Amino acid sequence: MKSQTNHPSIQLSKKIGGKIEIKSKLKLTSKNLAVLYTPGVAEVSRAIAKDKNLAKIYTIKKNAIAVISDGSAVLGLGNIGPEAALPVMEGKALLFKELGKVDAFPIVLDTQDTEEIIKIIKNLAPTFGGINLEDISAPRCFEIEERLKKELPIPVFHDDQHGTAIVILAGLINALKVVGKKAERIKVVISGVGAAGIATAKLIMRYGVKNIIMVDSSGIIYKGRDNLNPAKIKLAEITNGKIQKGGVREALSGADVFIGVSAPNILTEEDIKGMNKNAIIFAMANPIPEIMPDRAKAGGAKIVATGRSDFPNQLNNVLVFPGIFRGALDHNVKNITEDHKISAALAISRLIKKPTSGNIIPKALDKRVMKAVAGVFKSHNM
Amino acid sequence: MKSQTNHPSIQLSKKIGGKIEIKSKLKLTSKNLAVLYTPGVAEVSRAIAKDKNLAKIYTIKKNAIAVISDGSAVLGLGNIGPEAALPVMEGKALLFKELGKVDAFPIVLDTQDTEEIIKIIKNLAPTFGGINLEDISAPRCFEIEERLKKELPIPVFHDDQHGTAIVILAGLINALKVVGKKAERIKVVISGVGAAGIATAKLIMRYGVKNIIMVDSSGIIYKGRDNLNPAKIKLAEITNGKIQKGGVREALSGADVFIGVSAPNILTEEDIKGMNKNAIIFAMANPIPEIMPDRAKAGGAKIVATGRSDFPNQLNNVLVFPGIFRGALDHNVKNITEDHKISAALAISRLIKKPTSGNIIPKALDKRVMKAVAGVFKSHNM
Repeated sequence: MKSQTNHPSIQLSKKIGGKIEIKSKLKLTSKNLAVLYTPGVAEVSRAIAKDKNLAKIYTIKKNAIAVISDGSAVLGLGNIGPEAALPVMEGKALLFKELGKVDAFPIVLDTQDTEEIIKIIKNLAPTFGGINLEDISAPRCFEIEERLKKELPIPVFHDDQHGTAIVILAGLINALKVVGKKAERIKVVISGVGAAGIATAKLIMRYGVKNIIMVDSSGIIYKGRDNLNPAKIKLAEITNGKIQKGGVREALSGADVFIGVSAPNILTEEDIKGMNKNAIIFAMANPIPEIMPDRAKAGGAKIVATGRSDFPNQLNNVLVFPGIFRGALDHNVKNITEDHKISAALAISRLIKKPTSGNIIPKALDKRVMKAVAGVFKSHNM
Repeated sequence: MKSQTNHPSIQLSKKIGGKIEIKSKLKLTSKNLAVLYTPGVAEVSRAIAKDKNLAKIYTIKKNAIAVISDGSAVLGLGNIGPEAALPVMEGKALLFKELGKVDAFPIVLDTQDTEEIIKIIKNLAPTFGGINLEDISAPRCFEIEERLKKELPIPVFHDDQHGTAIVILAGLINALKVVGKKAERIKVVISGVGAAGIATAKLIMRYGVKNIIMVDSSGIIYKGRDNLNPAKIKLAEITNGKIQKGGVREALSGADVFIGVSAPNILTEEDIKGMNKNAIIFAMANPIPEIMPDRAKAGGAKIVATGRSDFPNQLNNVLVFPGIFRGALDHNVKNITEDHKISAALAISRLIKKPTSGNIIPKALDKRVMKAVAGVFKSHNM
């Protein structure tokens, strides 16, 4: 891997060290030392010892989450280990604070053992009001999240799965409005069967999409195919009912929507030409999408979205995670459900009053978004 | 345990929640999003993947430590569990930032299993530049610290042991100056054989004290006594050479110094009367000392110190820990040694130019102290 030492991100990191810091809410004085620390703090500890739930009112647990990674699937860089994952987790923590007023602390783990990770996070949980899992490779991420959701009394959210799935669904809802198609009737091809691809398939199915074809690097996933891990075997049961075979081009024949969470430049103009009229292309591989927007348009796509800020329709999960945890913390929600996720996607999509092919999703830093997403947890709690 | 809901510390906690928060070093803008987060952050990750040591320059690891407790020995409250320990760890984190400019994050663990704690902390270590252990009960704290010191590439410091020992030694050095006695010739009685008592015995011995009697709740510790745990058996080998027996009063007969890190009101005026002339009393039990200063003086003590801010000579380890980690982080010191600890005590003691019986130690928030302690690591590194 080549690194550019003069890159602005490196220059900045050299200058400031970490991107976040700890701040005291009060200045320390000789007068308040006894209130902030000993002996006064003992009264707060006594009260919590009597009723653990008071920790959610009296301590950082009220507003603090952990952003936890084992460094096994960091951005597009792969398994680069905990230290190299730390700048990403810090950046995420910064976004949590700036966009969601959530105090997120980055933690990178020196183990990639599933059971060990589960145990560590369970043991860290008393400190936090929520756990945001990040950049943990599939299929381990599924088991880690499922187990923690079951075993912990605080919300657990794997952003690579659900943040991505929610923002894609939000974009899809508006894109379908633009082209006048119904979720129940469309054929969707999803390229990439990792954390994001699987979560997206599940969420859009729950929303109403019935016909989905999943494609991995070996081609279309179908019942009985070789080379399927347990997660993919399950997917083969619920997608591709007609048992279509072949590669991504075969999959795209007669499709209405392509969702790529896979690899750069895997699609050509010709592939797009085989799709139905008014095709929708979400090419989310980052920084280089599955097909560049101009090529997709040349192939006949009506709507193109990517993960990039330099093209229209940026589908970025920064629209999702700050509001998810802001809402879950504020409304004391223990479990982030499929219904919360669909409501969050709907809430984001509704912020675009009149979607057009070049405007299906709010801008990444649109301040209305966090509140709309957080509000979902309020209404679900009532 | 009775708690007072109108106590100022509880009122404050209700109002502000946690005492610390996460702060972004830069405001987020649509311009810098790509530098602080994706895609720019990938360059920083790539660089660290090539050279892990860069994490100490480019990330929070440069200035962040964890303040970790299992809630097993919190203040004088005992084993109150992780949630109830959290306000104390937060207070400590606040002091680290305010006094040492160290970004300390509090972490409380939902396990009290020694091996599990060691494993968890080892797995958290990539995130941090140092580990401050806190309020973990003896004798487990000894093994946890020793193992982590051996197995981790970052400094590990159990403040209840060494912070207390260092501030006691600093006070003792000046108290001995006031009364004109030599460390080599004095008899010291230490009441309390937990983390603080044992670490204090070891450190003052290393400084030069030869005659120490340790006293626990069953009386004087001597070779062959019943009811000794392995840590106390070791102590019986190196203290109490004359195999004195009895209780604290017998121990104090002919003693020059009493150091209490034990329980309230265990000493009487009469006990003090049996000590040598110009007796030195460090009654550190908090908030109620082993003997109140006026009673100790009435018994003939020349110098009395406590852990309290409302009497002269407050021996508070807030004088120690901010400088310890500031120095270790700044000078990239991996191992905090016995020599560092003695140098730190000397550095603190030297800040009092002319010690008197009412002035043996700097005030808790004296700004010179942190720099003096941190400076120790600079000179040791040269």
